[in-house]
Amino acid sequence: MREIKVGIIGLGTVGGGAISILTRNREQIVRKLGFPLDIAAVCDLNAKSRTLPDGLEGALVTEDWRELVSHPNVDIVAELVGGTGAAREMVEAAIANGKAVVTANKELMGLQGVALGRLAAEKGVPLAMEASVCGGIPIHAVLKEGICADSVRAFYGILNGTSNYILTEIEQHGKAFDDVLKEAQRLGFAEANPTADVGGFDARSKLVLLALLAFGARVEPASVPTEGIERITPTDFRYAKQAGCTIRLLCAAEATEEGVFLSVRPSLIPVTTILAGVQGAYNAVWVKGDFGADTFYYGRGAGPLPTGVAVVSDLMRVARELRHGSAARVSPFSFTDPRD
Amino acid sequence: MREIKVGIIGLGTVGGGAISILTRNREQIVRKLGFPLDIAAVCDLNAKSRTLPDGLEGALVTEDWRELVSHPNVDIVAELVGGTGAAREMVEAAIANGKAVVTANKELMGLQGVALGRLAAEKGVPLAMEASVCGGIPIHAVLKEGICADSVRAFYGILNGTSNYILTEIEQHGKAFDDVLKEAQRLGFAEANPTADVGGFDARSKLVLLALLAFGARVEPASVPTEGIERITPTDFRYAKQAGCTIRLLCAAEATEEGVFLSVRPSLIPVTTILAGVQGAYNAVWVKGDFGADTFYYGRGAGPLPTGVAVVSDLMRVARELRHGSAARVSPFSFTDPRD
Repeated sequence: MREIKVGIIGLGTVGGGAISILTRNREQIVRKLGFPLDIAAVCDLNAKSRTLPDGLEGALVTEDWRELVSHPNVDIVAELVGGTGAAREMVEAAIANGKAVVTANKELMGLQGVALGRLAAEKGVPLAMEASVCGGIPIHAVLKEGICADSVRAFYGILNGTSNYILTEIEQHGKAFDDVLKEAQRLGFAEANPTADVGGFDARSKLVLLALLAFGARVEPASVPTEGIERITPTDFRYAKQAGCTIRLLCAAEATEEGVFLSVRPSLIPVTTILAGVQGAYNAVWVKGDFGADTFYYGRGAGPLPTGVAVVSDLMRVARELRHGSAARVSPFSFTDPRD
Repeated sequence: MREIKVGIIGLGTVGGGAISILTRNREQIVRKLGFPLDIAAVCDLNAKSRTLPDGLEGALVTEDWRELVSHPNVDIVAELVGGTGAAREMVEAAIANGKAVVTANKELMGLQGVALGRLAAEKGVPLAMEASVCGGIPIHAVLKEGICADSVRAFYGILNGTSNYILTEIEQHGKAFDDVLKEAQRLGFAEANPTADVGGFDARSKLVLLALLAFGARVEPASVPTEGIERITPTDFRYAKQAGCTIRLLCAAEATEEGVFLSVRPSLIPVTTILAGVQGAYNAVWVKGDFGADTFYYGRGAGPLPTGVAVVSDLMRVARELRHGSAARVSPFSFTDPRD
């Protein structure tokens, strides 16, 4: 049987985490798969001038992603760059070259996932994206496999770890939003430009992609009512507490006969519910199914290693499929309107 | 492409739930799979004299499981009988006949799963068992696929819904164990002989199977320290509360350099942890990985529809594999000692 080799584009936070796991957990990966999963090539804009992580001995190091996606030794391309420009070209080129693709790209999959999934299915290559939403929570495996027989009626998520960290700091220490944000930026929990996180837009991208996976419904991100957490104060939490509630940035998705309704907004959450227990930089998704009733999934939303687990778990699934020679692939978005 | 058809052995609670989902959710299943998943045959000891559920028009109805597992129209056999006697014969015969197998049988898979997984891999047929542990929680998909790249260091579970229901009733209403048990029996939440549930033995079977999936470790059930909830009183909850805790029947599994340690016992759980929020007949599993850190999974532990979701999700996964013609299968226990 042939070997399965990986090419990784992007040596940032997620790429570094994935390489670390492939290297440090190699023995167990071999034991679970029955064969090794080695890195054949890595690509980054500054790959040749920067210090590379351990575990890349013998791998091709390139600054040209076209060289990686066409390399004969690469079976699976991991696109860990992000964004919808170059990343889209990388994924399209990899598929066109017959490579399987693993991606951590929520914007690209939310906006172009159905089209890319169709391309991959036509070419007969797997396309996987567990890391694109809620890094540490295997919500994609849950929706696509674990509870695929259920009909999801609604789900509610805490999908942005930075916002949840800030809200729980305001709640627990009575600090002002601006002070907590500055502290989070100093600690590396928030970006220098925090708008995507605290304005709800990062959460919205994830909500749109989860709705596509859960309902097969395509929703335009700009159409989703979205409100951030910038105006939440310690006083809000005091009033919430009087009502037996806490406040979280809640992503809601409900499928009704009139259509699918999505929203992102700070919401009162009764303290007796399990969602209220989600504190700090954690994420959670609460799924309501017509048959399985309530299920709930919780884990770290980001970070190199939790997101790396999602990327490498996808690599292992795809490698096993390639190794055991499935004759045809199915779009991960097959549960969407066939007219798409 | 050929059709994929299902044969169901056992028309009890779980079988009824699975048939209900296959029938009521048929349209969405077709949409997700791209092809229908129909029931070709059902088998039950009293199949011919009892009222059959809806959705079996045109299906073979038999009281002889050997007829079902050798029927040329059946591609996947769902063993929903339970126990380790006849159920084992059914699974072995189905595999020998080249049928894929889906099972909800925790005892059989915990005790004989590795051997049956090897048989299935040798024969090149899929063997799936999502419904065997924590009915409504897709913990098998999570461990086998979603976070398979992680190295699980420990997990803690609330794995018996009956015990958790009784404990939360004692906690919330200050009632005595015996009174709550009688009420639970009247409501159908507890069996006439409650020993397996309240003595911790049902939880132990699930713990042993989860340890096999999470660590690849085979542990003899009789060697697991096991204590039930029979001696828990409202007074215990009052003392626990003073210590900032509640009490749950905790299944613990820890992998250390000295080996894997399992236990089932009533335990103090700090009320600030997310495990303490698991109330009533719900189940939960908290996983600690070397790389992904903490993840947490929660859902109904039993019931016809939640367990039916697990069975039908397995049927869909297996049907998709069969339909797309994988050339070889892998044991679901491939992550076990190769000497096994």
